[in-house]
Amino acid sequence: MLSVPLRTREIHLESRPDGWPTPDNFKLAEVDLPVLDDGQVLVANRYMSVDPYMRGRMNDVKSYVAPFQIDTPLDGGAVGEVIASASNDVAVGATVLHGLGWREHAVLDAGKVTVVDTSLAPESAYLGALGMTGLTAWGGLLHAARFKPGDAVFVSGAAGAVGAVVGQIAKASGASRVIGSAGSPEKVARLKELGFDAAFDYHDGPVSASLKKAAPDGIDVYFDNVGGEHLEAALSSLNLYGRVAMCGAISQYNSTEPSPAPRNLALLIGKRLNVRGFLVGEYADKSAEFAEQMAGWLADGSVTRDETVREGLDQAAQAFIDLLGGANTGKMLVKL
Amino acid sequence: MLSVPLRTREIHLESRPDGWPTPDNFKLAEVDLPVLDDGQVLVANRYMSVDPYMRGRMNDVKSYVAPFQIDTPLDGGAVGEVIASASNDVAVGATVLHGLGWREHAVLDAGKVTVVDTSLAPESAYLGALGMTGLTAWGGLLHAARFKPGDAVFVSGAAGAVGAVVGQIAKASGASRVIGSAGSPEKVARLKELGFDAAFDYHDGPVSASLKKAAPDGIDVYFDNVGGEHLEAALSSLNLYGRVAMCGAISQYNSTEPSPAPRNLALLIGKRLNVRGFLVGEYADKSAEFAEQMAGWLADGSVTRDETVREGLDQAAQAFIDLLGGANTGKMLVKL
Repeated sequence: MLSVPLRTREIHLESRPDGWPTPDNFKLAEVDLPVLDDGQVLVANRYMSVDPYMRGRMNDVKSYVAPFQIDTPLDGGAVGEVIASASNDVAVGATVLHGLGWREHAVLDAGKVTVVDTSLAPESAYLGALGMTGLTAWGGLLHAARFKPGDAVFVSGAAGAVGAVVGQIAKASGASRVIGSAGSPEKVARLKELGFDAAFDYHDGPVSASLKKAAPDGIDVYFDNVGGEHLEAALSSLNLYGRVAMCGAISQYNSTEPSPAPRNLALLIGKRLNVRGFLVGEYADKSAEFAEQMAGWLADGSVTRDETVREGLDQAAQAFIDLLGGANTGKMLVKL
Repeated sequence: MLSVPLRTREIHLESRPDGWPTPDNFKLAEVDLPVLDDGQVLVANRYMSVDPYMRGRMNDVKSYVAPFQIDTPLDGGAVGEVIASASNDVAVGATVLHGLGWREHAVLDAGKVTVVDTSLAPESAYLGALGMTGLTAWGGLLHAARFKPGDAVFVSGAAGAVGAVVGQIAKASGASRVIGSAGSPEKVARLKELGFDAAFDYHDGPVSASLKKAAPDGIDVYFDNVGGEHLEAALSSLNLYGRVAMCGAISQYNSTEPSPAPRNLALLIGKRLNVRGFLVGEYADKSAEFAEQMAGWLADGSVTRDETVREGLDQAAQAFIDLLGGANTGKMLVKL
């Protein structure tokens, strides 16, 4: 018989960040684990995801996901092993994906977990390229931006979890040119290893100048993870009938004032541009199609999964803070 | 035999405006009329159109239409009567639409004019609701913004030529609510007469507050003729999956500096909004479908054609300047 723990550890939101989050905004708490109700499972989490969107949930504002509450545990994507089950549907030993990260153990109804196939890819991949991160890249590029073969594609935050996958999907799908921006020379070098045709460090000068140099014939698609100056530069470089998928605006998540916005929005008219904001949830009904394509790209090497892994729940808050600062290359994970 | 004039008058661009245009930027010139070549017609213009997009052509910048040249005649939409013809296709007496406005007579190849049916609508309608103005409203609302019955629609510059038609098409097509903004109490009153459910004067306070009051349940479509503060307010009021058609940015045409931009563009993400810039030329292949629908709406009174008419070519420059200042209700025309 398995030994089931009675207590576990989890991260609570201690206070709401004002601008950049600090370790003081988080608290590691030890709590009792509840006894399983009928139909529930106990999961020992192996990896948890930290994602930029979580920053928005730390503000007390109405948005597309409810805000985190003070003195309660944070949540987010996690993958782990079922170590106790009161469900006929999910057996002990199964590896499952679920939404109760930021804790070492999770108790959930069996209907809230998805069993994943670790013979197809390692468990951490289900938080990255094969999971929400990959679906975000895939849905944003192919649906929100209506990518088509021959398009020149620019991705900002291209060394991040989503950006790196966007660029690789574009290359695998017949892009004429893929350009990425990132925040360090090491990341720029990595993008070139991943097959990007051009990449630049956005610290090296105005983004508009770097982009024009990297894409002298303009771009057809811009996948926006950053907002602000990047978006303004992209609008300037977009060709007629160009398309923007707005996925994130990480340059603005920690701003305490409204951010400077692109001053050239009127370009949308003459160039007949389309800008589409999107959330990954829109593509949930296409998950099977996505998973099949992505498994193929992972298998044939078209998509390489980069991960930056921190160890231990006590490192989770710092991992999240560092993610916002761009310390990661590829998917930022915490191994538990 | 008709008496054909040997000389005519036309308006030249004397100098490029810096900011707001002034009468000094324009010059009335008397010039010889050329002898007709084979296949050409001579048109006595009856009405010429002044349109906001012409302001952009007065700058020496590459755009979707070539800039006007100094010391040469301006051009733009006009309608007139053929008074001499060296073409087998277009007879003397025909009423024709063409692109050589800003002059009392025009000499063109017959292939560059379109004969219009004045039994269906008065000739001036072909510069307004039945012409480019109407097609702009129709294409922008139905295609760029993908309007569907039940949508709540907000139109800025709603008393202008395009805006007034947008609002009336929306009402005729099953909008749940149509809201317009305009620049004077008289225009607001006129919008209500035209069937708008709500209208406000944008001088009466922040646009965002006026819009929230006029559309307490939010909007689904924003037809943007103005840009700037209006666009920011609309993004704030748009419901999930809302759509913006960007048609113009008249608030910015005379700016000498980059304009302040909406600071809330990141709302596109959470609300999954779509913003589409467009030009009327995109819908040229749908002209017949448009003309049939619009003729029906004009006939059954769903769309009323408002016109502001100035008299005489010597008033054309001032008519254009006043248009940019919002002096018109509906389509601004110059009767020649």
